[in-house]
Amino acid sequence: MIILGIDPGYAIVGWGVIEYNGSKFRTLGYGSINTPAGLEPAERLLMVYRGMNEIIEKYKPDQMAVEELFFNTNTTTAILVAEARGVIVLSAKLAGINIAEYTPLQVKQAVVGYGRAEKKQVITMVTTLLSLPAPPKPDDTADALAIAVCHAHSGCSRLGQYYNK
Amino acid sequence: MIILGIDPGYAIVGWGVIEYNGSKFRTLGYGSINTPAGLEPAERLLMVYRGMNEIIEKYKPDQMAVEELFFNTNTTTAILVAEARGVIVLSAKLAGINIAEYTPLQVKQAVVGYGRAEKKQVITMVTTLLSLPAPPKPDDTADALAIAVCHAHSGCSRLGQYYNK
Repeated sequence: MIILGIDPGYAIVGWGVIEYNGSKFRTLGYGSINTPAGLEPAERLLMVYRGMNEIIEKYKPDQMAVEELFFNTNTTTAILVAEARGVIVLSAKLAGINIAEYTPLQVKQAVVGYGRAEKKQVITMVTTLLSLPAPPKPDDTADALAIAVCHAHSGCSRLGQYYNK
Repeated sequence: MIILGIDPGYAIVGWGVIEYNGSKFRTLGYGSINTPAGLEPAERLLMVYRGMNEIIEKYKPDQMAVEELFFNTNTTTAILVAEARGVIVLSAKLAGINIAEYTPLQVKQAVVGYGRAEKKQVITMVTTLLSLPAPPKPDDTADALAIAVCHAHSGCSRLGQYYNK
């Protein structure tokens, strides 16, 4: 089972791909799609789309786990992040990949065992669990791997959740 | 110059296509992309994408004018509308269409001449300006045509605006 974890963003999309066989993890790749601030928004959305397509083409994930968005403030950035997330979900859907979503609390609970864990704890746990040589950078990448691990730990059983909104 | 106006949405995307030659309007088509509430969000985003592609394929617009989003509340629906808008912008960008965006206030100002006009006034003006046999339904469709008219009235000169965020 190949799982693509995504930390959605507009300037930075964190991504991580792991293989999970029911007991062991293997890390296949991770990184971030970065879109320069100076570019027009439509161009940046296109970069997110093309970046997603490259990752999907290369790793052929069976499932995508993506973080749910919550916004406390009505900022232009929040809207742009949601626009980018729409493009991310579309790219997975077009490739026939199953999509699951998790809240940040669920991810922390699954990875650290404590829903209110610090970001640092999440990064440390991901680095250990996946036997990475160093903490993945930027943090969005570590978050993406954490989301993938969360999905694996959930036995990939929460696949239906995204669909029942 | 063929202009596609879009009132972005998640359940209903209003669209309208007009031709503008510098003084006269010709209405080429209008309607709405509707996504059923029972479907999974990713499936609905896919429907928006496919609907957009059909419209673009059929009318081959040179430019797309799309309403800007503002949210006062942090609702799940608001995030989903923004996700759909991301997909809408992507579909236009992939087709090489120039994209402009306008606030609701700018649209009302351009169509009715008064930024705080009632929705009903906008619909009446659009129906008259475009010599439509009846007010377009649903309202989202009338809004989309209003956005296209706004872009035409602006002399298609605000094309750069979307890019300067």
